[in-house]
This record gives sequence, C-alpha cells and structure tokens, in this order.
Amino acid sequence: MTGFFTEENSAQAVNARMRDGIDPRLKTIMSALVKHLHAFVKEVELTEDEWNSAIEFLTTTGQICSNERQEYILLSDVLGVSMLVDAINNRRPTGATENTVFGPFHVKGAPIRQMGDSISLDGKGETCLFTGRVLDLNGNPVKGAKIDVWSDNADGYYDVQQPDSQPRWNNRGIFVTGSDGAYSFIGTKPVSYPIPDDGPVGKMLAALGRHPYRPAHTHFLVTAQGHQKLVTHTFVGDDPYLASDTVFGVKETLVAPFEPNPDGTTQWVSRFDFILMSES
Amino acid sequence: MTGFFTEENSAQAVNARMRDGIDPRLKTIMSALVKHLHAFVKEVELTEDEWNSAIEFLTTTGQICSNERQEYILLSDVLGVSMLVDAINNRRPTGATENTVFGPFHVKGAPIRQMGDSISLDGKGETCLFTGRVLDLNGNPVKGAKIDVWSDNADGYYDVQQPDSQPRWNNRGIFVTGSDGAYSFIGTKPVSYPIPDDGPVGKMLAALGRHPYRPAHTHFLVTAQGHQKLVTHTFVGDDPYLASDTVFGVKETLVAPFEPNPDGTTQWVSRFDFILMSES
Repeated sequence: MTGFFTEENSAQAVNARMRDGIDPRLKTIMSALVKHLHAFVKEVELTEDEWNSAIEFLTTTGQICSNERQEYILLSDVLGVSMLVDAINNRRPTGATENTVFGPFHVKGAPIRQMGDSISLDGKGETCLFTGRVLDLNGNPVKGAKIDVWSDNADGYYDVQQPDSQPRWNNRGIFVTGSDGAYSFIGTKPVSYPIPDDGPVGKMLAALGRHPYRPAHTHFLVTAQGHQKLVTHTFVGDDPYLASDTVFGVKETLVAPFEPNPDGTTQWVSRFDFILMSES
Repeated sequence: MTGFFTEENSAQAVNARMRDGIDPRLKTIMSALVKHLHAFVKEVELTEDEWNSAIEFLTTTGQICSNERQEYILLSDVLGVSMLVDAINNRRPTGATENTVFGPFHVKGAPIRQMGDSISLDGKGETCLFTGRVLDLNGNPVKGAKIDVWSDNADGYYDVQQPDSQPRWNNRGIFVTGSDGAYSFIGTKPVSYPIPDDGPVGKMLAALGRHPYRPAHTHFLVTAQGHQKLVTHTFVGDDPYLASDTVFGVKETLVAPFEPNPDGTTQWVSRFDFILMSES
C-alpha cells in the first residue's frame, strides 16, 4: 500500500484528494493554501498545545462576530492581509491617487449635499475646510464625480457606533462635482482612534506588544463614469500613529496638508486632489 | 517618510511591528504565520471577492461551533493539519506503534472492565474479539498499561452522538494489563462513517470533490508508567475509504487483521500488539 499521508508528503497528499472537474480557480487557491499552511506548521513545528490554542482563537474570533462586529475583518486588517489584497487589486501608475482599505464603517445612501455644506452635525471638534479637485491622469477635471465622504467625530467614533448620541449621517455626505471637477465641504479635523480591542484580536495585539490605534483619517469613495473606483483616506500628517497604523493603511501620498485657514471661516483647511484612472 | 506598508515589503512591515520583550515563541510563530499567509495571498493574487468569501467562511465556521460541534477541528482535520501536527509531535522509530489523530469522540472516565468483557452494550453489528499485547520496544510485556478503547457502533455513530438511543458507555471501556501485557475484549467490527458534513467544512469538501468518510477504525489510548502515551486507531483493511480517509489518519502499520474467529465465540478476531516507547 502506498500513498498514505506522511509528515514529508503532507501537502501533496491533501491536494491530491481534490477531484478533476472542480472549479479551477478554487483548485488553485486551495492548493496554494494547503502548501503554505503546511509549510508554516512544519517551519515552527507547532506543538499540540499551540494547535489547541489556535483552534480556540479561531473559534472565539468567529463567535464574537455579529451584525455590528466583524472580528475576522479586524484580524485580516491587523495581519496586513486586507491591505495586501487591496494593493494587489489596485496597482496604479505614479500620479493616480492610491487606494487604501475600505474599512467597516461606510454606510450606503448618505445624503447628497451641496458644495460648501458642512457634514459635521454634532458641532464637535476642530472645523476644517476640505477642498480640491477630481482630475484624470492628464490633469483634466472630472465632471459628475461622486465624492462619498465619512469620518469619525471629535471623540473618535463613527455615527453608527453611537446611534444614540450622534445625529444620523453625522460626518457623512456625498458631493457631486461640476465641470470644474472642484469640491469643497466643511467637516471636522479627524482624530486617531483604536479599533475595537476587547475581543480576541485585541488580546492578540496586546500579546504582540502592538497598540490598536489608527492615525487620524477621513474616508473617501470617489466614483465617476468612465473611471476606476477610488477607495482611499487622507491622513493628518502629524498624527502620532501615522507610522504605526494598526491596519497598515497609510501611504505616503495620502498624507494631506492640514493648515490654518487664512480666511478664518474654519480652523483648518485641507487641500487634496483625487486623480482617477480611466476604466481600461 | 519611509517604512510604510507596500505590496513588496508587506510581511516584513507587519512583523516589524512586534515589540521586543514579547514571548519569543509567540514571536516565532506569528512571524512565520504572517510570512506564509502573505506568500499565499501573493501567489494566488487573491481578489477582493475571494477575500470576502474567505472572511464569510471563517466566520460561519466559528459560529457553527458549540459544545457538541467543533467545526474548526474538522477544518484542521480535512486540510491535513491535525495529522501533520500529530506527526511532528510523535516521531517514533520503526517498531513502535504509530500515533494517529485523537478525534473529537473520546470521553474521559470510561468504565474499567475485566479482560474478555464486551464493550458492545447495544448488541448491534458483527462481533469481534480484539486481542494482543502491550510491549516495549525490546519485546517485554508492559504491566499495568491502561488501554482506553472507543468506537462507533454498527450504525456509524458514537454513543455521545446518540445519547437517546445508545446505552451510555456503549463501545467504550478501559482494560488494564497484567504481568503478561496481554489484553482481550469483545467489541463490534467498526464501520466507516462520514464526519459531520452539513456545515461550512462539508460544503468545502463537496466543492473540492471530496467525500466526508472515515474508514472503519477503533480508537485506542494506551498509557503506562514510564512509557510515552500512545494515541492511535486500528483500521479494517478492506474498507473502501482506507486510501481516502477524509482526515488523513491512516498509516499502513495501523491496518489490523480482521479474520473469522476459528473458535466461533465471535464472528471476527483482530490481533494487534501495541508497542510503546519509553519515556526519555
């Protein structure tokens, strides 16, 4: 008799069980997963106690998930997997605005507002004029671009995290560009905040000596006909967590200026142009 | 500014965040995990939809777990990880009985029975005399060895899976050897059965074109003072799933003879010696 599983042939023995005729992409993914997973176990020579701890961790990470909490996305985020998938699927030439993680706090159907409106409905925090243009790679303005913006408030929470104490749609809105591609709205200078760290992922971060903070950022989803979707943030440059974002979302090109507003209508002004790629 | 996460440096960027002074074994394991996990994502260039499917799969696999069901152990089993961990932690010289997976159906505190007793309390299935000796690597009998045996019944279920229809401790018992190291008891010739396949792991097996069956086997946990613990099964040689055990537990040396019993007191007789390693 031959062909039984051994320590030496383990990954091949598992992958040989997949039948012909299954989805070829699934076969590619599972073959690679088994190969790398077994290589990991062999490299560290995982003990039975460690295996038990891993089973327990994976189980509790699933069981804490609810409609309001997705601990597996947090796990993917803090292990850099979310940003890696984002990077692989959104490679762009120099000059195009870079993507970053979407995050769990976007809500569809935010109100469409007029240029210059404020999205800060709770009046908290330092006021900031966000302004700039949506352009294509040739520098031409993009007309009809939808800029969907969302941000935490001055206490570090999104409206959906505090439905009882924040106005609905606080720090959210959609702005549609005209023929000049320009946008402007008044919001709050964002603040850094921790991801939810009272679950298994928070415990893991603590064991690794890592903090759970994201540096201050404002989320943007920019869409326009004929152009690729842009999912990004702008970051505040002097944030203490800029170099250690717990989800690895920071890119140097996404650090935006925040300067005192010379006309005094807001405390800060942040100018940032979004450069879209054409759909190919 | 330098040191931000990129597609190229992704694993190093994540691992650089771990602080000095954390548990060194945890650091070793997490560094290797991140390295292999990122290598997997890069090799297959995981799409955002596939990432979403993975998050959903991991979440539902956690959420189906209960006191009676451990879907993450099933996942580890069918991906060959459980057997790989078992193999790494139980390397033995030729001659010593090999280990195999413990499985989820052992129950502590089974009744201690007398040699020759029957463990089949429901009277179902084909009767079999299990007999042999517990020996050390030099062929000396091991006195006072505890042989803890458990098995499915003739319908393919363990007593704990059918608490309402099977007698408690059906097909379970502990036998303690005397100075000759010999054991014998009457049980049921085991039958093959599927692992629980109505959850995410069962769906995955179906998508991979794999069946959920384990070939017929009898579980043994053999312990004796001064000797290493042995966790193993014996398998029935003509089982149709012997070469395709869905959890990869079969080893050639664990296939036991099942022959008609010449004295007619049972239908079958299965002779198998357990060879223990000394504690080093």
